[in-house]
Amino acid sequence: MSRWDPDAKGRLGQAARELFVEQGFDRTTVADIAARAGLTERTFFRHFVDKREVLFAGDRLAEQLTASVAGAPAGERPLEIVTRAIEEACDLITRDAQWSRRRAGIVAEHPELRERELAKMGLLASALSTGLRERGVDAATAELSAEAAVLAFRLAYERWASDAEAQRLAPLVRVVLAELRDVTG
Amino acid sequence: MSRWDPDAKGRLGQAARELFVEQGFDRTTVADIAARAGLTERTFFRHFVDKREVLFAGDRLAEQLTASVAGAPAGERPLEIVTRAIEEACDLITRDAQWSRRRAGIVAEHPELRERELAKMGLLASALSTGLRERGVDAATAELSAEAAVLAFRLAYERWASDAEAQRLAPLVRVVLAELRDVTG
Repeated sequence: MSRWDPDAKGRLGQAARELFVEQGFDRTTVADIAARAGLTERTFFRHFVDKREVLFAGDRLAEQLTASVAGAPAGERPLEIVTRAIEEACDLITRDAQWSRRRAGIVAEHPELRERELAKMGLLASALSTGLRERGVDAATAELSAEAAVLAFRLAYERWASDAEAQRLAPLVRVVLAELRDVTG
Repeated sequence: MSRWDPDAKGRLGQAARELFVEQGFDRTTVADIAARAGLTERTFFRHFVDKREVLFAGDRLAEQLTASVAGAPAGERPLEIVTRAIEEACDLITRDAQWSRRRAGIVAEHPELRERELAKMGLLASALSTGLRERGVDAATAELSAEAAVLAFRLAYERWASDAEAQRLAPLVRVVLAELRDVTG
């Protein structure tokens, strides 16, 4: 249990996710998480502010989206660029489908987690918008394209999580975008 | 200073807004607010959880939006119904333009207030979506129309607040919706 255990954060996150699935988010304490990971509570608090942060850490989503936007081919429509970036992220997010669904349920049940989730979505939209502007897209188009894609992602994720039959999340993003086009068009 | 002073909440809110404008949000304490209103801190905490709550209370926006949607003429497009509801709310929100701009600045500067603002927008979207469904609009159209209108409101409010020349907020909502149509169309 080295102070500098390089994988401590990963082990704590994995232990927390297992416990959230097994016994629920509310009944899981930081002491439980640390014990499952074979680490101390003190180590937990070196990596996370609280147990809620486990739900919002680890996937480095904003960096991935930014890299994807930067690497898109020239000449593509801004909405297409950000939608593609989000589709790529979807498969990463739902790699562990059971956990992703459970996570969505935990977030939906706790108002303060819903708030944080919306704040995270806001950060993702900012990252996508900045990425588009760095490609020379005008500010309004960049902002609206990014917000539309993130809105589609948020609603698609909610639908996917509440539908046990749904296979992949990514195609639902385009479904929601088509609905958005229909209602605004 | 009656315990049941019927206007205590209004006076505390007014005092807080004045102080936030005069000396800034961070430098204003609950003690300052209570003193300005001629009330006690204890009374403040009977009406507000903390000074941040003053920024998010008082306008009963969700109820107003719901009433507006319920009262819309039959046969209108869902997006038009929710956009009209938001336009009506805009004039109420910006009644005190100096305060509304300052409020937007305070929110923008504090990450935890930005989070709460996004959460409030989520509640407004839910209220609008529920209102549309109660008129018989299908769930997907109701959700997307409500989310599109609230997104337009949020971005319009940011633009209005950062542009001292902007007169009215309401027309900017339609400008943003047109941009959203352009990027998704």
